[in-house]
This record gives sequence, structure tokens and C-alpha cells, in this order.
Amino acid sequence: MDYYSSHISKLIEQLSRLPGIGAKSAQRLAFHIINMPKEQVEQLSNAMTGAKENVRYCKECFTLTDQELCPICANAKRNHKQIMVVENTRDLAAYEKTGKFEGVYHVLHGAISPMLGIGPNDIRLKELMHRLQEDVDEVIIATNSSLEGETTAMYISKLIKPTGIKVSRIASGVPVGGDLEYIDEVTLLRALEGRVEL
Amino acid sequence: MDYYSSHISKLIEQLSRLPGIGAKSAQRLAFHIINMPKEQVEQLSNAMTGAKENVRYCKECFTLTDQELCPICANAKRNHKQIMVVENTRDLAAYEKTGKFEGVYHVLHGAISPMLGIGPNDIRLKELMHRLQEDVDEVIIATNSSLEGETTAMYISKLIKPTGIKVSRIASGVPVGGDLEYIDEVTLLRALEGRVEL
Repeated sequence: MDYYSSHISKLIEQLSRLPGIGAKSAQRLAFHIINMPKEQVEQLSNAMTGAKENVRYCKECFTLTDQELCPICANAKRNHKQIMVVENTRDLAAYEKTGKFEGVYHVLHGAISPMLGIGPNDIRLKELMHRLQEDVDEVIIATNSSLEGETTAMYISKLIKPTGIKVSRIASGVPVGGDLEYIDEVTLLRALEGRVEL
Repeated sequence: MDYYSSHISKLIEQLSRLPGIGAKSAQRLAFHIINMPKEQVEQLSNAMTGAKENVRYCKECFTLTDQELCPICANAKRNHKQIMVVENTRDLAAYEKTGKFEGVYHVLHGAISPMLGIGPNDIRLKELMHRLQEDVDEVIIATNSSLEGETTAMYISKLIKPTGIKVSRIASGVPVGGDLEYIDEVTLLRALEGRVEL
């Protein structure tokens, strides 16, 4: 890339390491950044280093936060006896956006995947079991509806059942507004199996 | 976004301002950056501020570079009498990748677009005309094959013709390896008009 000056090449190279950003996007982004006002570039750069330096795991639910306890775990109005287990902080955010869940979360940071060599000890499962020693009514498993997510859900439910705590799994089926024609067969079958009486 | 801590929200917001990065990608990138090793985050952040601070326009061809004269203009082996006019530095890089063009470039930083209110004075046209006072054999117009690119090409060729310098336009037609079936009609007609005898 010697037709670009070294500063530009370096920026393109760094950007193309980010997930989902290929060589072309990295070039486009690099030139956009070079053309941005200086203060904006500094804001972006500081946001990155600031987040990296200050963000850590909530000591209760292990979501990413900048306090010892995340805002949800620190909120006394939330139902701390109902724990929703999610794979990552983005999934937590997705449920928080609904505004309807009053309980708290537990973030696993991954899912069990024999294919990728990720076992139960590689995700925050021990920490979940530790939390269940407190007074907990229900664990809602909201891992993804993928092979890994389902495997993890099964594994967790087997672990928890002997404790007598209620374990549930979020429903899977046809998404609201989904056109049956475009939905895969596995989802259609799942929706059939999970049908509810009206 | 109060379910994210302020450092995370700030990073997501900054990232989502970049072109082609929507809310979802910004979230994914933010968590990726937070999980990157600290040195890598610093490298990325420094690459941005470094590029912003050091990159300027080549005083000859106006490409983005970090020297007074870009490596191409500074290269005595290039043919300085043949100037290829491109819209931006990425287009210059695209032609440099072919490794076959021996001349030098002129980067307009845009194209004439009456729709967007971009006129001949908003791009580096005066600077091109100034360069033609030196000894130049040919100006090759390699603006995009879009409405704006074609308008710009026509405008430049009319400006240059009276000077007696040869003006040419890169060919447009069916891309190599392109399947006729999937190519738009305008391109097909253009390819027909531009046919060459075998």
C-alpha cells in the first residue's frame, strides 16, 4: 500500500482488523476520519481508550459496566429473585429495550460450544450457581436460539433443577410480523410444537 | 441507553456517527473494542489521531499524504507529462494497484454536481489548470462513470481543449468477467457504442 502515506496505511490496517470491516470499508472509514474535524477525531479516539480503561464486569451479574455494580443490579426496585441468563451484554440491552422485564440478569459471556472448544468452565456459569445460593425464585434462560444457545440452556437447566429453583426458557417461534413464507423450517416446526390454546 | 454504562454509550454513539455503521454495528464494534487488548485499542486510537494530525494535501497533485510532495509526485521515474484526473485518493489507489500507469495524478476531491450544489470552484480544478502551464502531453480523465463523473469529465475536457493538450477519457463498458445478464442497460449500450474492431 505504498501509494498511501504511512499514516493512512496504518489507519486502514488498524480499522480493517475490526470485525465486519473489510479492506474497502476500512479505506472508506479512514478517509472519512481524516476528513473529520479534529475535535471529532479526538472524541472518537478518547471514547475508545476511555471505554477500554473504565469498563469492567459487574461483580453481581457480570455485564460490562463502569461501576462496581451495574445500574440494574444496583436498582432496589428490580426483582432480584428473578434472574434472566443471557449470552452477552448486547442481549441484555435487547431485553432492557422492551422495558417490560423487572428482574435482573446474569451475563454468561459466551455459550457452550464443543465445536469451538468452549466448555461450561469458559463461561460465567460457576458465578451463576454461586448467585443461586441467595434467595432466587426463577431463572429464565434467554440464550440464543442457536445450537450453542440451546446446548447451554439444556446444560444450565440440568444443573439448576436439583436445587428446586424454577427454570424457564424464553419461547421460540415465528417472530412478530414475520412472513411465514420467509421463515425457515426449523422455526416453523418449533412454532407448531409450542402452539398455545386460544 | 441507560442500560449501558456511560462509557459504553459514549463509544457506541461515537462509532455510529461513522459512515456505513448503524446502531447494531456500532454496538458490536464497541464491545469488540472493549474486549481488545489495551495496546491494540491504543494503537487504533493513535492511528486515528496520528493520521488526522499528519495527513495533508500533496502540493502538486492534492492527494492525501504526510509529506509536502506525495511519493508519486516525488518519483522522478514517473511520467510527469501524463496526468490522470481522479475524484479522490481511493480512486488513485485503485489505479495504482494495477501497477501499469506510469504517469502522475491529479485528485479533484469531488465531482461537479448541480444537484448537491458542487460547482467547478468546489473541486481542485483551478489547481489542475495551473499544472497545465507546465509541459504536459496528455490529461486522462478517470472520474467515475456516474452522472457527476461524466459531467465533470465533459467540463474538464471543454476547459482543456483550447490549450491544445490531448484529453482522453477512460473507456466505459462491460467489466471484465461481468455477466451480460446482470449488467444494466446503460452500460450495455455504452459497451456497444464503444466497440472496437478486432
